[in-house]
Amino acid sequence: MDPALINFKVLYVLTQLCGLTMIVLVGTWIGQHFGGLGGSSNPKLEFNWHPLFMTIGFIYLYGNSILVYRGFRTTRKKTLKLTHAGIHMAAFVLTVIALKTVFDSHNLNSPPIPNLYSLHSWLGLSAVIIFSLQYVAGFVAFLAPGIRENYKIAMMPLHIYFGLFGFVLAIASAVMGLTEKAIFAITSPPYSTLPPAGILANVIGVLYVVFGALVVYLATEPSYRRKPIPEDTALLSSGSANE
Amino acid sequence: MDPALINFKVLYVLTQLCGLTMIVLVGTWIGQHFGGLGGSSNPKLEFNWHPLFMTIGFIYLYGNSILVYRGFRTTRKKTLKLTHAGIHMAAFVLTVIALKTVFDSHNLNSPPIPNLYSLHSWLGLSAVIIFSLQYVAGFVAFLAPGIRENYKIAMMPLHIYFGLFGFVLAIASAVMGLTEKAIFAITSPPYSTLPPAGILANVIGVLYVVFGALVVYLATEPSYRRKPIPEDTALLSSGSANE
Repeated sequence: MDPALINFKVLYVLTQLCGLTMIVLVGTWIGQHFGGLGGSSNPKLEFNWHPLFMTIGFIYLYGNSILVYRGFRTTRKKTLKLTHAGIHMAAFVLTVIALKTVFDSHNLNSPPIPNLYSLHSWLGLSAVIIFSLQYVAGFVAFLAPGIRENYKIAMMPLHIYFGLFGFVLAIASAVMGLTEKAIFAITSPPYSTLPPAGILANVIGVLYVVFGALVVYLATEPSYRRKPIPEDTALLSSGSANE
Repeated sequence: MDPALINFKVLYVLTQLCGLTMIVLVGTWIGQHFGGLGGSSNPKLEFNWHPLFMTIGFIYLYGNSILVYRGFRTTRKKTLKLTHAGIHMAAFVLTVIALKTVFDSHNLNSPPIPNLYSLHSWLGLSAVIIFSLQYVAGFVAFLAPGIRENYKIAMMPLHIYFGLFGFVLAIASAVMGLTEKAIFAITSPPYSTLPPAGILANVIGVLYVVFGALVVYLATEPSYRRKPIPEDTALLSSGSANE
């Protein structure tokens, strides 16, 4: 086996462990320190869906969707594209729910908390908008029928760049969100004395960054690039014949 | 002229405008809203050196040092390496001063403010440590005499990856720092009502991200890559002859 691919597998497993740990710790954080989850009758608890679903959808699934091409390199291209679009759709649905719960938790609070004032919200919403535009553009360019091959080739570097940019921006927004929540909600004893809830917040933030760094590395290292398999070409020919 | 290089120049100029605007706005922010700069006799004002020098050193100079190879592509390699090391040294000195002023502003405050509790400090200090290790490793691998060429070739992808990782982590830390300062110091009226100081904080954060995105794009787009010039080879041969 290609030694580069052994490295890839080790780092890929490490990425998954890091991602799953991150999700478990966010669950622990909101469960142990902030009262767990709740519906719109309890805006403070409804808020807690926000970090949980953003972590699962907008970080873990977003990252894994990016890695699909390199992680399942013997699967044919068409299946990978559909999987990529499918995981991204799941990520999008969780992200929309996560946005809904944060708006609810602001609007239903008494007194209401203003929306979209913080840098976290500006950058986080920008990341969601970039992600959504990417989804539409990616669908049109790479999945819709009848698109010319040279157009796809021209679009690919932009799709990769803005995909990774949105992902990194999501992580930057997440560490800002942790900072806000830690300052506002870890008060007795305060965050500055680094109580367990504060240490956990920081550890989660470090895991976000390590997960992000691993995903970007695995997705950009040239030696890990997926090579076309015979089934891709067969499909391409039959696809071309149908056009 | 190669059309890719025309795009490069336009984006390069945009990057500089974005970077310089970012520095001016940080100066305006601390000058107009937080009382300007001060020495250790006034810890609150001494703090203000922290965002200013981090922005100039750990973001603007760090980014420009990365871009030196692509921005000055007709300069010979040896000169570019020394310029890269020189700008990085200036960035490092400003960063160390910026760290000193934040520790001072905590320790000299009455009562003292705890150090290194926040996720901002954990990730920011990690970025500084990665930067410092990179400096030493880069110096040993690429500037010290007598290093074998195949060792340099093996080190280069790691140097580029961790260089960009440290830079992006610096920006993620910076937007967290803005968030902390905005929450703690924009209080009457509060940050949540988005007064001028809050809007300015958010705009600075957006500029950090745009600057970072441009630097990473210019540094990684394959068509912008610097090609060796005749002087590089001449130098390499004479260098080899001296070994």
